[in-house]
Amino acid sequence: MLLHPDRLFPADPATRAIARDLYRTVEHLPIVSPHGHTDPRWWGENPAFANPAELFVIPDHYVVRMLVSQGVPYEALGIGENAESDPRVIWRTFARHYHLFRGTPSRLWLDHAFSEVFGLDERLCEDNAEHHYDVIAERLADPAYRPRALFDRFGIEVIATTDGALDDLAHHQAVRASGWQGRIVPTYRPDGVVDPDTDGFRRNVEQLGMLTGCDIGTWEGYLAAHRARRDFFRSMGATATDHGHPTPRTADLGQAEAHALYQRVLKGALTRGDAELFRAQMLTEMARMSVEDGLVMQLHAGSMRSHNAGVLKRYGRDRGFDIPVATNFTEALQPLLNAVGMDPRLTLILFTLDESVYARELAPLAGVYPSLRLGPPWWFHDSFEGIRRYREATTETAGFFNTAGFNDDTRALCSIPARHDVSRRADCAYLAELVTSHRLDEAEAHELSPLLAGELARRAYRL
Amino acid sequence: MLLHPDRLFPADPATRAIARDLYRTVEHLPIVSPHGHTDPRWWGENPAFANPAELFVIPDHYVVRMLVSQGVPYEALGIGENAESDPRVIWRTFARHYHLFRGTPSRLWLDHAFSEVFGLDERLCEDNAEHHYDVIAERLADPAYRPRALFDRFGIEVIATTDGALDDLAHHQAVRASGWQGRIVPTYRPDGVVDPDTDGFRRNVEQLGMLTGCDIGTWEGYLAAHRARRDFFRSMGATATDHGHPTPRTADLGQAEAHALYQRVLKGALTRGDAELFRAQMLTEMARMSVEDGLVMQLHAGSMRSHNAGVLKRYGRDRGFDIPVATNFTEALQPLLNAVGMDPRLTLILFTLDESVYARELAPLAGVYPSLRLGPPWWFHDSFEGIRRYREATTETAGFFNTAGFNDDTRALCSIPARHDVSRRADCAYLAELVTSHRLDEAEAHELSPLLAGELARRAYRL
Amino acid sequence: MLLHPDRLFPADPATRAIARDLYRTVEHLPIVSPHGHTDPRWWGENPAFANPAELFVIPDHYVVRMLVSQGVPYEALGIGENAESDPRVIWRTFARHYHLFRGTPSRLWLDHAFSEVFGLDERLCEDNAEHHYDVIAERLADPAYRPRALFDRFGIEVIATTDGALDDLAHHQAVRASGWQGRIVPTYRPDGVVDPDTDGFRRNVEQLGMLTGCDIGTWEGYLAAHRARRDFFRSMGATATDHGHPTPRTADLGQAEAHALYQRVLKGALTRGDAELFRAQMLTEMARMSVEDGLVMQLHAGSMRSHNAGVLKRYGRDRGFDIPVATNFTEALQPLLNAVGMDPRLTLILFTLDESVYARELAPLAGVYPSLRLGPPWWFHDSFEGIRRYREATTETAGFFNTAGFNDDTRALCSIPARHDVSRRADCAYLAELVTSHRLDEAEAHELSPLLAGELARRAYRL
Repeated sequence: MLLHPDRLFPADPATRAIARDLYRTVEHLPIVSPHGHTDPRWWGENPAFANPAELFVIPDHYVVRMLVSQGVPYEALGIGENAESDPRVIWRTFARHYHLFRGTPSRLWLDHAFSEVFGLDERLCEDNAEHHYDVIAERLADPAYRPRALFDRFGIEVIATTDGALDDLAHHQAVRASGWQGRIVPTYRPDGVVDPDTDGFRRNVEQLGMLTGCDIGTWEGYLAAHRARRDFFRSMGATATDHGHPTPRTADLGQAEAHALYQRVLKGALTRGDAELFRAQMLTEMARMSVEDGLVMQLHAGSMRSHNAGVLKRYGRDRGFDIPVATNFTEALQPLLNAVGMDPRLTLILFTLDESVYARELAPLAGVYPSLRLGPPWWFHDSFEGIRRYREATTETAGFFNTAGFNDDTRALCSIPARHDVSRRADCAYLAELVTSHRLDEAEAHELSPLLAGELARRAYRL
Repeated sequence: MLLHPDRLFPADPATRAIARDLYRTVEHLPIVSPHGHTDPRWWGENPAFANPAELFVIPDHYVVRMLVSQGVPYEALGIGENAESDPRVIWRTFARHYHLFRGTPSRLWLDHAFSEVFGLDERLCEDNAEHHYDVIAERLADPAYRPRALFDRFGIEVIATTDGALDDLAHHQAVRASGWQGRIVPTYRPDGVVDPDTDGFRRNVEQLGMLTGCDIGTWEGYLAAHRARRDFFRSMGATATDHGHPTPRTADLGQAEAHALYQRVLKGALTRGDAELFRAQMLTEMARMSVEDGLVMQLHAGSMRSHNAGVLKRYGRDRGFDIPVATNFTEALQPLLNAVGMDPRLTLILFTLDESVYARELAPLAGVYPSLRLGPPWWFHDSFEGIRRYREATTETAGFFNTAGFNDDTRALCSIPARHDVSRRADCAYLAELVTSHRLDEAEAHELSPLLAGELARRAYRL
Repeated sequence: MLLHPDRLFPADPATRAIARDLYRTVEHLPIVSPHGHTDPRWWGENPAFANPAELFVIPDHYVVRMLVSQGVPYEALGIGENAESDPRVIWRTFARHYHLFRGTPSRLWLDHAFSEVFGLDERLCEDNAEHHYDVIAERLADPAYRPRALFDRFGIEVIATTDGALDDLAHHQAVRASGWQGRIVPTYRPDGVVDPDTDGFRRNVEQLGMLTGCDIGTWEGYLAAHRARRDFFRSMGATATDHGHPTPRTADLGQAEAHALYQRVLKGALTRGDAELFRAQMLTEMARMSVEDGLVMQLHAGSMRSHNAGVLKRYGRDRGFDIPVATNFTEALQPLLNAVGMDPRLTLILFTLDESVYARELAPLAGVYPSLRLGPPWWFHDSFEGIRRYREATTETAGFFNTAGFNDDTRALCSIPARHDVSRRADCAYLAELVTSHRLDEAEAHELSPLLAGELARRAYRL
């Protein structure tokens, strides 16, 4: 049996029984997925997935990084020039190394997908690699395994994609036009027109001007162009923006200073620190726009992208080489929070890869600012231990109601139910421990578990 | 039942039985409270508390911050201009939001006070808000609910208040004159005459000169004035000083340098870094005075006070907006410790809001310097999980005997027994786990539990 | 009974049974000790240990620091001028304070040695101090308690010593000449000829030149000298180098720049930052040499050595005053990893004293770079809680196969079996918890436990 019904529940039998009871009531609740990276094309065009390697190996940076760490070349995983092109060969490499994933969330997610989505009940290994490949490949040819069918089968209530500010949202348009009822909403992600360190930044800003008819030659025009794009995203169903910055630094410059900074940025005449200062200023501007238009703001900070220059050059971005760094929020967010942090119209959801800030900074901040919500454990940390550490470190100071529910943050479609299941189980385990230690009544735990499983995300993201 | 007799004990039945046995022997031990913020007027004048909202809501920054974080305006809590003035209305707001405290230490403390102090056995909610209000209000009119009576009823052996260097300690004088036997001791807290960033610093220093007759125009006279005030505090029973600094930075300047720095500070002619350097130097001077006069020194560092400028301006200090920051002790304390860290006459107790330093810095430092003791988990961290993390992170390196017992650090009188109870339960739970895993014999655990419950505090604070 | 057979196993009976089963199969596996500080003379000359105080107290910085922290002077422990010279008196002082070690790993290690090595079944205390002393002293006179006999009795398969770059490895030569079959291998530790802040650095580099016949007057000659010494160490069985740096900073300067820096370093004409930059550059050079010659590289960073100036002056180094500081690896290692991090010939094992980097930096780095392995918990952290935190923080991101097994890192010979035993028990406890929560099958746990107990160390260190 690949999936034990009691997985992730506490060892103590009395506590396990409580966790089981709690889980039973949330197990089948609809999935609310307010932050993710599924390909909008899946929803717009509903294509079949090409083969098992394209579905489970090549695009999954968790899988790829683990194999690379143990000496498997990118080429053997179908990545790079002269890469292996036979998906069956790639699959075999993956299967041969499947033991590497022991103890990792990837193992839980993959086993869940193999078992629940493809009906495979034996753990993947070298010996059954061909059989697994054949079964998955056969099913992928079946319309029941196309994206929209899986969306329905997974019980997804709503899923948000993440889309560049310049995106035409054509796939979202296609969904609307198709008559299919799945709720797919875009998210306004302006990094490419906000971060002067982005490749092609200047070109992007010019395109922003063309798309909106705003005069991006001026600071006011540039801000107006953002407003126009946000309006367009809202018209397509967006309820949130997303900001992926190296640091959470914010700034609140005077008009003249901001204007001058923008001119330097636009002309590529940056002095040291200008790029970070511009990103910092733009977070505050985005927060001001959120006060006006009601889009919920998300801040993801603390990752050093593409750590290895050679890998970036040869294999590109998102190949497993984004590595977290120490992150400080208390000082960094002060300018933004002084500007609009007490405004009841703003919701700003904070994500970190540096767990030491949970208890030290994020819970104290989210536990007092009405605009702040604590995002769920992110990236490396939306795992069983990651969720446990998150709850244990944040609940005592921020409570449950200042957290923003769970989100799966994934581009791996088949892992979505698995991830929400891990989150629901981990939260039920945590609640059960509060009950056993008499920090919570059982009735209270039953009220909280569906909130954590979806309702808090609905509220935080205004879905 | 609001309070389960087994609350906070481990789930495993065998371990729970050991915890229960350990707790039974410390449950009723006298409360030693060597660091707190109770109002000296309570002890000097023994007034009745005005009403339930004044007792439980308005002055409790944990309660206020949680309500504010969920959108309740300060005004609705009786704070600020044009604030709600009817305590019953404030109480209703509090009761309506009581579910927000699920999973927080405030819930444990409040339930404990409602149940043990006021005999209310139903959890507070909107429906019973009026009844709870009436019961508490009625009791508050009873002399048995005045501060001195509660002091006796709570089994408090000694309580320390925290008092500015300029304080006349009139309430402490009144206690002595009254014949009441409760032991209330002051603590010398010189921040207002040591930190050049304090509002009114210059005026404070002048007052220090007037009070002591010392010539604060010179560095030597300024130090002499501190010595005089410390002597006065000692004569009133003080055994400790307390220092609340943004960072734990210390310095040990040469005489000429220190003299020149003081002149700049006094004249308000500060150059960049001078304020921090002066605070740093003063920590070392205070440590030197402690070597001479035996006052135990406490250092509380790592909080960024009044994070939001608008809240500070409209509602003042201590409104829930003090937020921790990353703190490093190893380098910061070196100058002080090089000067007097090996002196057996010094005791310096260290507190942190940055838990990442427990295992990394504080336990290694307290585990070797004879002058250092590790203060208990502080502020956001004197909670069940906070205490567990503290013990797990520090015991292996510093042992038990380099810790300074528990202190409640509170201005909420009715929470004092609750906080000490949480601490005793959490420590018994931890000891029981050491016993079950055979890291400690049961007899040793029985020796340690009363030490952790009070005796280590008595020793560390020389009470 | 001093040692309970179930010590360190989980409280839950079902989980404990699994841990017990796992432990049974690894309990008696040979000890692989790829990083330690045992005295090479022990192996070369096989002398008797002088007395119980020389064996257990004076050289053990964990023991000394705890006693000092509670006011015992160094002199009473036989350290410093006019120190106590009677080992029996020192032993009595130790015994009288033995309760201080409750809850620490030292207690576990010492009890283990007393019981398993010397057959003493009563816990040390003031009353039995003489008896324990006599028993240990008597046994130390027996050849069965000399180093080589203990090596055999402890089931040590291989032990690595740590040796300065200038060391003649005479004791290693003596082992070879003796015909004794114990495998003792040296480790190339070049700090003294790499760190310009070392006392006598210039003299050391000159000696390096003399030993190798290389012209250390040039950058190329200096690097060639390192190559020569590495070859010599390899000829004596070394499989690894070790680098103890204040920070993990690395650099990859151009040839001209490196050349100029070396000239400044050699002439003692350092400008600010040069010493750190030279150490940083040398880490990358060492990594390049490792690519060539196959020596596994170890980096130990993050300790501020000899924190107290007075203690350093009076009692010297390694007296318990090395204190950890916050450490960042992600940015610091980038230059080295850009240079050679993707080279399959390199293995670089990383150690930290700052646990906050486990989940944030080290697991993400080791989980993707094929050259990186995560070293085991180090120094203050090779304890039960330390190992638990390490596994819980790193496994989900790096898996098991990117970790480098356990090493004892000790100069205390009798603690070696105790330390490996603690590690094996802690790992079995962790694996058992994964099984009970159905994150791992029991059969998988049985495959992993011997890997963690020795095989991963063999592989990582190429032993």
